[in-house]
Amino acid sequence: MDAKGYLTEASAEMEAAIRSYIPDEEPMRLIEASRRYPYAGGKRMRPAMVLAACSAVGGDRAKAMPLAVAVEYLHNFTLIHDDYMDGDEQRRGMPTIHVDFGMPTAILAGDALFAKAFQIMTELEIDGERLRDVLKYVTKAVWDLARGQEMDTFNEGRIVPEEEYIETIRLKTSVLFAAAAAGGAIVGGADGETVRAIEAYAMALGLGFQIFDDYLGVCGDPSKTGKSAGNDIRRGKCTILVTHAMESIADAAVRDEFLGILGDADASEERISRARAILKAAGSIDYARQTAQRKVDEAIAAIADLPPSRDKDFMIALAEYAIDRDV
Amino acid sequence: MDAKGYLTEASAEMEAAIRSYIPDEEPMRLIEASRRYPYAGGKRMRPAMVLAACSAVGGDRAKAMPLAVAVEYLHNFTLIHDDYMDGDEQRRGMPTIHVDFGMPTAILAGDALFAKAFQIMTELEIDGERLRDVLKYVTKAVWDLARGQEMDTFNEGRIVPEEEYIETIRLKTSVLFAAAAAGGAIVGGADGETVRAIEAYAMALGLGFQIFDDYLGVCGDPSKTGKSAGNDIRRGKCTILVTHAMESIADAAVRDEFLGILGDADASEERISRARAILKAAGSIDYARQTAQRKVDEAIAAIADLPPSRDKDFMIALAEYAIDRDV
Repeated sequence: MDAKGYLTEASAEMEAAIRSYIPDEEPMRLIEASRRYPYAGGKRMRPAMVLAACSAVGGDRAKAMPLAVAVEYLHNFTLIHDDYMDGDEQRRGMPTIHVDFGMPTAILAGDALFAKAFQIMTELEIDGERLRDVLKYVTKAVWDLARGQEMDTFNEGRIVPEEEYIETIRLKTSVLFAAAAAGGAIVGGADGETVRAIEAYAMALGLGFQIFDDYLGVCGDPSKTGKSAGNDIRRGKCTILVTHAMESIADAAVRDEFLGILGDADASEERISRARAILKAAGSIDYARQTAQRKVDEAIAAIADLPPSRDKDFMIALAEYAIDRDV
Repeated sequence: MDAKGYLTEASAEMEAAIRSYIPDEEPMRLIEASRRYPYAGGKRMRPAMVLAACSAVGGDRAKAMPLAVAVEYLHNFTLIHDDYMDGDEQRRGMPTIHVDFGMPTAILAGDALFAKAFQIMTELEIDGERLRDVLKYVTKAVWDLARGQEMDTFNEGRIVPEEEYIETIRLKTSVLFAAAAAGGAIVGGADGETVRAIEAYAMALGLGFQIFDDYLGVCGDPSKTGKSAGNDIRRGKCTILVTHAMESIADAAVRDEFLGILGDADASEERISRARAILKAAGSIDYARQTAQRKVDEAIAAIADLPPSRDKDFMIALAEYAIDRDV
């Protein structure tokens, strides 16, 4: 199973739905700002997860489409607000919302997508009590997303213990994956145990993805990732490589040398190479890859009891892809 | 019935609940920012409306408490974002969130309260299909709020037709009142017709309130409103007085004179008095009061068929208070 192929198909499958929930109405400026990110595509991993989880438990995936769209809108709402907070000017090859529409409209477009996502969920053709269950997952996820983003903002430039780092990426990345997968399974009619298994799968998958991103940030091929390989180090980002190095480097001089490079926005390529060598010697690079691998193994193990299906195959393939990619 | 007395009682009644839904958890900085506005009090008109509507249809108002809290959190989320967008530095006698916590936390605290509001609603002890109905009202209201705020932001300094003005205040003010009232009625077990009557009441009440605010902005006693009486004129705010004046002043010279004062941030008290005299001569001041009165009459008429109760009395008294206040 080719995870990317499934994602491309799922993206096409949901295209019309994604474009159907924000009708023309006044003020059109807000409508246009709200539509930009969801209409622009992207990998659409989260909504694909909704559809796959629904099918994988034997449900009718068409019934899960409103939830898929809602989850994508929620993801896009967080992107709009994050881009403004981080001062990012480009996304998906286009100017970010605050750049083109100004700050107030960026904040309001995020809020509007947030509201629309929940409005769409009220249209799910499922029993009211199942709707309540779906909403419990999704509302918890959005609350946690705000917590994770706050942690991320205020930990910038700080080195935190691994446990805190893992908690931050869990909140920032995994909880929405988990809500998407669990929600899809609920819409598909799964029992509580199956829903929890699928939630565990997505939670571990999200962590695996994020940790492998940390690895790529230091060891990835810049011609493929599109990011300078030293970026995370120059920005002083506290990745799992850094948390591990801080706990592993015994030699105070080496430690100080590494900390001298970390966060140095103007560090030369030579200094970046030196930082990478220190991380390698400390075993931090291997540790990051191994931790990502362990999370992926956990993810796949969590759904072992699902009956065979193309959608289960996709879920497994996506987990494998999380740690076998160069971008 | 004393509307203010009922509000004070309802506020005390909901105090513990309002403080019960945001537990201590990391990051505490975000938790503290999220708590500030809801804990600070304010009139709490919207959540009181939830409780009153629930009781007025014969429901158990304790059951409506989660919705009351959710509606107050939603109102507070919009205040946090609006304060940042508008650059306001004080609210309820305290620094606004972005002033004390910075921009990212202000945006995230708003988002977090938004998420928490919906999380709380999933705990409503009502049938899942009634929960869906409540959510339809509330999600529509929050979507409309973003539209109204966008209109308000981009109409600043522009003069719009009365119809557009009314639509803006309907979206900015009335829809959340209406969702609060309709939601309370649904939780209370009301039938569809009663829910719509109560919704119509709150929608008209919201308009009456806002239009009377416009009147107070030009004719209020500054020692009571706490705002300079010329403020709205100096800021060039397009109130119903302005939309009416523009449609009523036949003499081009007078019209130009008025437009010369409107939006002049440094206008002297004498020029403000002149603008007020022009509005008075054009009948715009009477028109604003009469329109507010008509909305209040509509509101009261809408709930004529509700059986007598202390809560119905409050709803009527609140409508009367909307146009009989000096602050």
